[in-house]
Amino acid sequence: MKRIAILGSTGSIGRSTLSVAESYPDRFQIVTLAAGSNLEAAFAQARRWRPRVISMAAEADADVLRSRLKKEGLGEIEVVHGAAGTVRVATHAEVDFVVSAIVGVAGLEATYEAVRAGKILGLANKECLVAAGELITAEARRQGKPLLPIDSEHNAVHQCLRGGRMEEVERIWLTASGGPFLNTPHSEFAAITVQQALNHPTWKMGRRITIDSATLMNKGFEVIEACRLFHMPPGKVEVIVHPQSTIHSMVEFVDGSILAQFSVTDMRLPILYALTYPERIPSDMRFAVSDLRHLDFCPPDLKKFPCLRLAYEAVEAGGAKTVALNAADEVAVAAFLEGSIGFNQIPRIIEDVLAATNSGKLDSIGKVLEADAEARRLAQQRVADGKKIEGPRATSFA
Amino acid sequence: MKRIAILGSTGSIGRSTLSVAESYPDRFQIVTLAAGSNLEAAFAQARRWRPRVISMAAEADADVLRSRLKKEGLGEIEVVHGAAGTVRVATHAEVDFVVSAIVGVAGLEATYEAVRAGKILGLANKECLVAAGELITAEARRQGKPLLPIDSEHNAVHQCLRGGRMEEVERIWLTASGGPFLNTPHSEFAAITVQQALNHPTWKMGRRITIDSATLMNKGFEVIEACRLFHMPPGKVEVIVHPQSTIHSMVEFVDGSILAQFSVTDMRLPILYALTYPERIPSDMRFAVSDLRHLDFCPPDLKKFPCLRLAYEAVEAGGAKTVALNAADEVAVAAFLEGSIGFNQIPRIIEDVLAATNSGKLDSIGKVLEADAEARRLAQQRVADGKKIEGPRATSFA
Repeated sequence: MKRIAILGSTGSIGRSTLSVAESYPDRFQIVTLAAGSNLEAAFAQARRWRPRVISMAAEADADVLRSRLKKEGLGEIEVVHGAAGTVRVATHAEVDFVVSAIVGVAGLEATYEAVRAGKILGLANKECLVAAGELITAEARRQGKPLLPIDSEHNAVHQCLRGGRMEEVERIWLTASGGPFLNTPHSEFAAITVQQALNHPTWKMGRRITIDSATLMNKGFEVIEACRLFHMPPGKVEVIVHPQSTIHSMVEFVDGSILAQFSVTDMRLPILYALTYPERIPSDMRFAVSDLRHLDFCPPDLKKFPCLRLAYEAVEAGGAKTVALNAADEVAVAAFLEGSIGFNQIPRIIEDVLAATNSGKLDSIGKVLEADAEARRLAQQRVADGKKIEGPRATSFA
Repeated sequence: MKRIAILGSTGSIGRSTLSVAESYPDRFQIVTLAAGSNLEAAFAQARRWRPRVISMAAEADADVLRSRLKKEGLGEIEVVHGAAGTVRVATHAEVDFVVSAIVGVAGLEATYEAVRAGKILGLANKECLVAAGELITAEARRQGKPLLPIDSEHNAVHQCLRGGRMEEVERIWLTASGGPFLNTPHSEFAAITVQQALNHPTWKMGRRITIDSATLMNKGFEVIEACRLFHMPPGKVEVIVHPQSTIHSMVEFVDGSILAQFSVTDMRLPILYALTYPERIPSDMRFAVSDLRHLDFCPPDLKKFPCLRLAYEAVEAGGAKTVALNAADEVAVAAFLEGSIGFNQIPRIIEDVLAATNSGKLDSIGKVLEADAEARRLAQQRVADGKKIEGPRATSFA
């Protein structure tokens, strides 16, 4: 019986994790949950799963939840809140495995504390590796505990890596769907609307990650995550566009053999893999190999998608640069979604923030959060200065 | 330093193995060689590699080789011949690893004796698994020694299997190029010429295996090999046509994940893999992943290619049936190459021989060779009766 904490239980990955737990009641026990602000969902989860502890983001929500649970005769469920509450969920003594799936930097501290407490980590929170990857991977190594990736690309890489030893890896190939603008001429990028950008061809995801997929920034984040998760230099992590997203990623070994992983595009599969690793257990998520027909590939166009180039530059520099990359992107994407800036301006804001950020190692989560706040401030300023950055400078990326 | 014997040193796999040994002089030592009847090639190999022992098929060739080597001042190389000579090469005390690459049943006894002598086997001889697979795999299990496949499909499967445990395997998917008649209408099969059938789209190989690729019998043999090598029931080994032959094969796990292997189509790669397993060492055989463009797949057409169906039926029945499948195919293909029978008659002869063969376990190499001889006799008879089997019966496969 694996005893599980979920950080971000009401989000998409959190719900998929609970769905996996539902399918294998003999294998997984949900011990603690950290929800966000969705009180109804948190209440339903607490009633269904009867965790030892559940945390809400806000104290007021925690108070409401506590009294509702008491009325249901579930007063024994401890209801906590805020950052300290999330840490309590992540480090609970009865937890073996922590699914880290809180979007944004809110999950950083709790994830880091989970690793420090010797938990095995299933990582679905991008910021853990993009912003604080150096800290978290170093701590996991110190603890001798695996970090198990839950997004489909890194999960695929993890599976392919089983075909050899780490020192036998020549290169990691992350596949990218290419997003909705793969075949859109660069000249039309300035006119891209929010609705167009939210229309991702293969995955149904949250709004920010959908825009990040459209700019290929999401792939850039994945390059950074791969570098940190698998201790690879950026030059050994490459991206290849594969519009069908059938092959989730590949590993090239020094002898010239390449292993690729594919499966249905269902997040429950990498979640199940992470939760059961090093075992594999039967699931109903079958990919019909006999229905395979065509797989297409092409190299990414870094001129059309400068965000990918910026990610390589940030991870090459390391430290605060990748924190700034993530923070500036979050601000820029929010501004795009609000209609404050154009699609083409997303990479420009990020590039400006990166240029204004010192590289340099960050040796605590506190410093990561400081760097994050500073980059957000810079990015907000750039958005506010929007008028100034509009216009012909967009061509500097062409 | 791995000490190597090559059974079939002057053939294609033998020469590729020597080419690998040439590239890694610090890793591999050629200890013994079994050549066939190519005296010049055997002499050149003996001079270059200075093996302890070299064997020729015929005694007369061995005598000539012995005296030529003596003249070169290489009289210390022991020259032997025939079946006993091949066994001596395969079981030499200084040998760790035996590459079994003698085409046909000639290599069976020596390969089996190599396993009995505790050698690690690199298998490139199809008959070892098709005709005598039950015996050889049982003996390797008893010895606790791995059987390392050297053809590209099974080598790919071996690599993909590293992604999980054997009991976690749902299915093996062997890829097939589909051969030169993938898109030829079935109605034109009766008129297929030898020249058309010898024109394989991706691999340059010997004449028999090229025809076997055109009928998909080669894929049928590979299904049988996979069943025996990986201890899988026939229902768990499937074939998918993949004309580019980029992906060499795939393994589907119970959780729904599929691993696929690809690489350049160069036999030195699986040879290197087998010779260095469980290590991987750097090679110059790079597949340019960034040049990947299109991979196509479709299910095999068992009506057009009844040989594949016959292979499933033979392995399902086991014992003498797979021996007969191989023997009858060899006779039928030779008859086709000589112009004695048409392309469509290859599967008909095999089917007739299978129908006339009892299944039943063969518990010695001697019995395998007896069953082989009997099936050849039956097949020769069917070829001689050629006139009777021509004509409309071909449609029974349609």
